[in-house]
Amino acid sequence: MKLCIVNPNTTASMTAKIGEAAMAAASSGVEIRASNPDFGPPSIEGYFDEAFAVPGLIAEMGKAPDADAFIIACFDDTGLEAARSFARAPVIGIGEAAFHMASLIAEKFSVVTTLARSIAPIEKNLTKYGLIARCARVRAANVAVLALEEPGSSARKTIAAEILRALDEDGAEAIVLGCAGMTDLARDLEAEAGVPVLDGVACAVSLAEAMVRLGLRTSKRNTYAAPLAKAYAGDFGGFSPS
Amino acid sequence: MKLCIVNPNTTASMTAKIGEAAMAAASSGVEIRASNPDFGPPSIEGYFDEAFAVPGLIAEMGKAPDADAFIIACFDDTGLEAARSFARAPVIGIGEAAFHMASLIAEKFSVVTTLARSIAPIEKNLTKYGLIARCARVRAANVAVLALEEPGSSARKTIAAEILRALDEDGAEAIVLGCAGMTDLARDLEAEAGVPVLDGVACAVSLAEAMVRLGLRTSKRNTYAAPLAKAYAGDFGGFSPS
Amino acid sequence: MKLCIVNPNTTASMTAKIGEAAMAAASSGVEIRASNPDFGPPSIEGYFDEAFAVPGLIAEMGKAPDADAFIIACFDDTGLEAARSFARAPVIGIGEAAFHMASLIAEKFSVVTTLARSIAPIEKNLTKYGLIARCARVRAANVAVLALEEPGSSARKTIAAEILRALDEDGAEAIVLGCAGMTDLARDLEAEAGVPVLDGVACAVSLAEAMVRLGLRTSKRNTYAAPLAKAYAGDFGGFSPS
Amino acid sequence: MKLCIVNPNTTASMTAKIGEAAMAAASSGVEIRASNPDFGPPSIEGYFDEAFAVPGLIAEMGKAPDADAFIIACFDDTGLEAARSFARAPVIGIGEAAFHMASLIAEKFSVVTTLARSIAPIEKNLTKYGLIARCARVRAANVAVLALEEPGSSARKTIAAEILRALDEDGAEAIVLGCAGMTDLARDLEAEAGVPVLDGVACAVSLAEAMVRLGLRTSKRNTYAAPLAKAYAGDFGGFSPS
Amino acid sequence: MKLCIVNPNTTASMTAKIGEAAMAAASSGVEIRASNPDFGPPSIEGYFDEAFAVPGLIAEMGKAPDADAFIIACFDDTGLEAARSFARAPVIGIGEAAFHMASLIAEKFSVVTTLARSIAPIEKNLTKYGLIARCARVRAANVAVLALEEPGSSARKTIAAEILRALDEDGAEAIVLGCAGMTDLARDLEAEAGVPVLDGVACAVSLAEAMVRLGLRTSKRNTYAAPLAKAYAGDFGGFSPS
Amino acid sequence: MKLCIVNPNTTASMTAKIGEAAMAAASSGVEIRASNPDFGPPSIEGYFDEAFAVPGLIAEMGKAPDADAFIIACFDDTGLEAARSFARAPVIGIGEAAFHMASLIAEKFSVVTTLARSIAPIEKNLTKYGLIARCARVRAANVAVLALEEPGSSARKTIAAEILRALDEDGAEAIVLGCAGMTDLARDLEAEAGVPVLDGVACAVSLAEAMVRLGLRTSKRNTYAAPLAKAYAGDFGGFSPS
Repeated sequence: MKLCIVNPNTTASMTAKIGEAAMAAASSGVEIRASNPDFGPPSIEGYFDEAFAVPGLIAEMGKAPDADAFIIACFDDTGLEAARSFARAPVIGIGEAAFHMASLIAEKFSVVTTLARSIAPIEKNLTKYGLIARCARVRAANVAVLALEEPGSSARKTIAAEILRALDEDGAEAIVLGCAGMTDLARDLEAEAGVPVLDGVACAVSLAEAMVRLGLRTSKRNTYAAPLAKAYAGDFGGFSPS
Repeated sequence: MKLCIVNPNTTASMTAKIGEAAMAAASSGVEIRASNPDFGPPSIEGYFDEAFAVPGLIAEMGKAPDADAFIIACFDDTGLEAARSFARAPVIGIGEAAFHMASLIAEKFSVVTTLARSIAPIEKNLTKYGLIARCARVRAANVAVLALEEPGSSARKTIAAEILRALDEDGAEAIVLGCAGMTDLARDLEAEAGVPVLDGVACAVSLAEAMVRLGLRTSKRNTYAAPLAKAYAGDFGGFSPS
Repeated sequence: MKLCIVNPNTTASMTAKIGEAAMAAASSGVEIRASNPDFGPPSIEGYFDEAFAVPGLIAEMGKAPDADAFIIACFDDTGLEAARSFARAPVIGIGEAAFHMASLIAEKFSVVTTLARSIAPIEKNLTKYGLIARCARVRAANVAVLALEEPGSSARKTIAAEILRALDEDGAEAIVLGCAGMTDLARDLEAEAGVPVLDGVACAVSLAEAMVRLGLRTSKRNTYAAPLAKAYAGDFGGFSPS
Repeated sequence: MKLCIVNPNTTASMTAKIGEAAMAAASSGVEIRASNPDFGPPSIEGYFDEAFAVPGLIAEMGKAPDADAFIIACFDDTGLEAARSFARAPVIGIGEAAFHMASLIAEKFSVVTTLARSIAPIEKNLTKYGLIARCARVRAANVAVLALEEPGSSARKTIAAEILRALDEDGAEAIVLGCAGMTDLARDLEAEAGVPVLDGVACAVSLAEAMVRLGLRTSKRNTYAAPLAKAYAGDFGGFSPS
Repeated sequence: MKLCIVNPNTTASMTAKIGEAAMAAASSGVEIRASNPDFGPPSIEGYFDEAFAVPGLIAEMGKAPDADAFIIACFDDTGLEAARSFARAPVIGIGEAAFHMASLIAEKFSVVTTLARSIAPIEKNLTKYGLIARCARVRAANVAVLALEEPGSSARKTIAAEILRALDEDGAEAIVLGCAGMTDLARDLEAEAGVPVLDGVACAVSLAEAMVRLGLRTSKRNTYAAPLAKAYAGDFGGFSPS
Repeated sequence: MKLCIVNPNTTASMTAKIGEAAMAAASSGVEIRASNPDFGPPSIEGYFDEAFAVPGLIAEMGKAPDADAFIIACFDDTGLEAARSFARAPVIGIGEAAFHMASLIAEKFSVVTTLARSIAPIEKNLTKYGLIARCARVRAANVAVLALEEPGSSARKTIAAEILRALDEDGAEAIVLGCAGMTDLARDLEAEAGVPVLDGVACAVSLAEAMVRLGLRTSKRNTYAAPLAKAYAGDFGGFSPS
């Protein structure tokens, strides 16, 4: 089985961290292809960055035509619907993967993300997926995505404090980490918090494996039907959908 | 890995069918324990049967203290919350497993279940899980559960016709089969329908495997905390919770 | 008119208290039969206890075939749907009775219950009944059900303090007491709070009387149709549904 | 106990019919005062009529200062919130009374009202009360309110046909009659339909009795606080609030 | 273009303030007719006042048969649906105007109104309009409407403090002022708050102009159909609908 | 006043039609700049096309730094949130413009769009805007966007038939045309339908004018804050955000 995991931003250190987390979560025999586009935003913080990340994401997916499943490794699930229209193999976002898994082990979970501007996109995703009713609250720790890449930053500590507030004030029974860049912090934070702390990258790898084993593929009826146009005018980093 | 799958009704032929489907869906090396209680209702059709199935379900779970995960093989997810309070290992119902998986491959799915009396419990479950917004409609094919066990019954044909109505009238992009007894029909029905047709038993096995690999366990904070009483007065078929 | 009120736990002192409250609320000429099962949990605190209380509840209902209406005297409305499928006479839970009455005299009410594990079941009931929109918040006072039975406990004081928080923080215009064991506290707490404080036992008695006078009976179309099976294999404390 | 029931339109024949239905539903010893304003609309069909009916409704309530409870006998629950702000005794509308009672005996009910223009006000009321989730559909039979007052009209037949469509198409398990003028038809229609058919007048009388016996009074905290102004400039048929 | 703006209370100083704000917001060439009834409540604070304001509101509308659009200048949108049934020209309330505009420039807005009794009517309006999901919170500053008319009152300061709490606690990205009497404060409060602060009067004038330019008129199909009765019995300040 | 209207697809004939409709709707003295990107999809039908249209849309907006407001002339409101993060001037989509306007003149509206794959994006937008509760149904007429550009096509007739079904089956009181390419059909279809038929282009022009007159600008607090990155790696048709 071959899983193609795309970090839709252009920061290679984050891709490396995501790839490691994915490999740690994968069953033996599962091949992981982790990559990022070479054009687009260096981090995805809010709607504007999201929009410019999608052409590069699709381009990376196009380089893995033999993938059994695709994973979008940005917590906003950037371009998820476009990716489902593009591919025949199943596609899963790390945000939705974590939300689904959290709802199987806790009545209510809270999300701890980076900046306040990401709260609305995450809440809208929860509404789209139908899982907003299971989310106690989406919280921002006020840590920029790229601060998570800096050695020695105080980001982990700040996030840990926000998790304690979520337990105290929201009645959360589990925590979802709201950024792909937090993937390496989950285990430690769970030990401190005393409740499950979920990392979307690992959740997505396991769910993608499950989907492949089940032979599930995206329905092409209506919403995710293949695009009508065979090629688009112009240039998105050298990529034409096909 | 050891998965304990309990059919909460007392019909052994259905348990056998469920066990086969589970084994077909399981990864190699995964051990399946499929069983049913020897007391309780012969089929679960509506709220009354559900209530009387739970003590037996918990009793069967109690016989598998070394299970890595539990699966409740009734589409109503009978006793799901009680089971989550009872066990430390994760628990998943076949209804919720199918709903989550369907929402990852289709914008809208319809459910085709047996009798009209099961529509309300399924809709309430969808609301509890938060996924009602992704369900186009819950439909009853007017086939009793035990009719699915009769060789040569017309049940398959009736269900196939209901699936076509779901595609036509509901805008469904995928179909979820709403009874554990339909587990052997999924593949054929999918071929006819031309959209994904999901069987909860297979979905639950794959999801349970994923949860075990991820090390996920039910949160014991608040809702699913262990029961306060160590034993209950009286007799539920010889079982006391512990 | 004969009302059968079942306390679904096995604690006789609570049944006595419930019976007294019911008699105080009943019109003259109304006969109250208050009882509890002799098997099952001593108190119902969360989903697990609920599940094991239902067979005993139905057994008690079966002993009153001439009842004009049934009342389930647990605030979780344990087994309400099963009971509606079982009986022809109307059935009402004390939780739902209090919610409906509160919504007739206040725009928003808050619920004060015992332990945090009961919040989720109560919220789900409110959602099922459709009344979640009228509930400002479900709060736990962190008092175990059986502490309410201990003479000289500080439970009343703790609950009074939680009520004040509900008025202050939630904008509640009325309070619903979230446990059958609080039935004797309502009048005093109302005097302190200065807003209506509703006890589910009294509300349920009055509503049950109203239903009997109106000749209302549970609809047997679809959801609450009588169970298909005439008897179940095995033993639930000597009871077979019939 | 004294119940003041106001028909907020000016059609005396409808008031008489409502009064009779109320007396038939009342317990012995309950005194019914049924009246209507002498100014305002002859029937209430839609939002415009509703608005002009409220001053007269309040005026009639003002004539019964010793009432133990008030009933608003228009299915739109015309002026319900204003009436709750005006009175200290509890107030109930016949629409809300029927909705609450229906939700205690059926999972889903449909409403059959008169004209299409009344569908939106009824749906908005259901949303306000929180019970929209329990309503399968609000249907108009295309019968004007005053046609129900004409001897020999075909209204009953038309309504009966609409009820059958509700059972067939909506999955309704009970029917709520959506106009005070249908109060005399309930018993016959129930016999034909084979499911409970609820009349709001009777439901409101029984609920009002229940509220009085429970000592419930409208909360005066926030939403239903008494009006600040002691008198209004001008003339609403000779009435000043006090 | 001629806009008829009705302040549905009888306080002329407030009408003058509203008229000035409307003229300041209007395009050149737009004629503003601002008036108030001479009967009804002096201020509208809660449901009771609302009900008594509608006949006078409609009477004022009836005096402007050549208006191209109508504006109801009470933040509760008093009588909006009745007014839409009465007129052929479009009608807009200042509450709904502000909500719609706020939702076009901010993901989440908070409302700051006068007294706690107005919170429920405003929340219900937001639900009716569908915009409740975009409203972070409706807050009361505990300032009576008529206090806004007193020179030298501390009302502005109190409202400014409530706005800061909305930014701090609700995550609001814009503020809607929840009373027509606050119309002259918007500009100053916006400067202090650093986020958009919307006044309903100005928003309604601009939206009404837009509707007139587009040739939009209230649909007379179903909900807002003209009333059936041509005149009502009795006296509402000398007005008969026509 | 200068309005910049961007058709986010690359079909110039549609841009011309949109520009004409915009000019017809604009007040005198309002300058319209209508353009389309020269790279990206030729029509936007579903999620995939949407994603590839956003970089070009933003590029066109970047060419009009002096615009007082921006209009996105695709009914899916492609890239709306990204555009709001990019610009300081207000941005409005033609879909949301039509939804808001429709909700001011009708209780319920239906949308008639082109292909079934556009139903889900439109429904999700309605949910995001909060207006889904006011939409009776989103319908596809099964007409491709570019068929609307072909002279002599039967598209108009097909759409007219779908409108009649919406009136008949949905209880719609107004119709929203769900594609920028239908802008020239609105007047004729309204005459046939007998209820308001709204075109998003005209609605957006009028709303944008209103916003400019009111001095409204997108809140930069949280959700629509300016992007952190000053430039992105790579090439989106020669555009870097700034």
